[in-house]
Amino acid sequence: MSSARTDIEAVEAANTALYEAVERGDLEALSALWLEEGEAGESPAAAGPTDTADTTDTADTESTDGAGSHGGVSVVHPGWPVLTGRGEVLHSYALIMANTEYVQFFLTDTEISVLGDTALVSCTENILSGGPAEEDGSAGPLVGGLVVATNVFRRTGENEWKLWSHHGSPVLVERDDEDDEDGEDETDLGQGDIDI
Amino acid sequence: MSSARTDIEAVEAANTALYEAVERGDLEALSALWLEEGEAGESPAAAGPTDTADTTDTADTESTDGAGSHGGVSVVHPGWPVLTGRGEVLHSYALIMANTEYVQFFLTDTEISVLGDTALVSCTENILSGGPAEEDGSAGPLVGGLVVATNVFRRTGENEWKLWSHHGSPVLVERDDEDDEDGEDETDLGQGDIDI
Repeated sequence: MSSARTDIEAVEAANTALYEAVERGDLEALSALWLEEGEAGESPAAAGPTDTADTTDTADTESTDGAGSHGGVSVVHPGWPVLTGRGEVLHSYALIMANTEYVQFFLTDTEISVLGDTALVSCTENILSGGPAEEDGSAGPLVGGLVVATNVFRRTGENEWKLWSHHGSPVLVERDDEDDEDGEDETDLGQGDIDI
Repeated sequence: MSSARTDIEAVEAANTALYEAVERGDLEALSALWLEEGEAGESPAAAGPTDTADTTDTADTESTDGAGSHGGVSVVHPGWPVLTGRGEVLHSYALIMANTEYVQFFLTDTEISVLGDTALVSCTENILSGGPAEEDGSAGPLVGGLVVATNVFRRTGENEWKLWSHHGSPVLVERDDEDDEDGEDETDLGQGDIDI
């Protein structure tokens, strides 16, 4: 149990490091947190990144009748399509950082599940962000946001936890058991009027 | 390479089975597709579901200053908060099924990455769904939707791939390289005007 506790603490630290790198706009630190090809230790009988190098471009082709296999990492930012591969993933963060003057994440509801060399993290990102400065030089407007994220980490051969996938999405439906004092309307998602 | 190919095919079949179960409204089949406690094979030095049974209820408590560890599965439906544990996950699907008269998924851009006993699947769900019938008995309105999903599967001791996590989110930003003939406006996500 002690090693399991250590794993969870290590995964939580890696998860926190992701958001701190975005807060600092530190693309180099962010890059080091994402899994690289061949870094993910064992997988003798499975399709690891190095096994599928010849099919990494299937993301750009239409594949309605068969699955492609990509070389590892993927990201979904809130409202964005899926981006796969380190190139697309890091480029997307560079764009976000370039367009964000100020951002701070307060993580809540962090839940971690570790199975073998994979860790599944879910958390709520309470985001405070600011746009570019106004023309008169004053600070841009600060806006709050609520995003839920599923982050998948993989243990490397060096016993470090690296990001395999990040998926963030906006929260539109409120839970019944939470306070309803922020005045936001519930949004119908086209799946019936579901209160959860 | 043949075993890697077999893994990817098996994962793709499990991924397809998820959506087919929802299409049929078959909660029993759906339940069988999700990982159960203790089912996830090896993890001697990690916090598997059986190690953390005493903390499975942390999802219901406020945990702003430390990570909880939950007993396995989690789901995020488009616009919903995170739900953790088989109980909440299956209940959410039961609610969706009860409020959906008709739904069909056309999966595109399916990308699969397998590392050891974990598989990461990203795909686009092109959804055609219909609400409850009108009062006059005619069919309810059909609506289309676009959702991107990250699905994480875990290989069980019986060499089956079971769902560990599903995260679906609405796509609000269009890619430049896609046709722009559906007339939807691009949506500002508060992260600057980013075209990707």
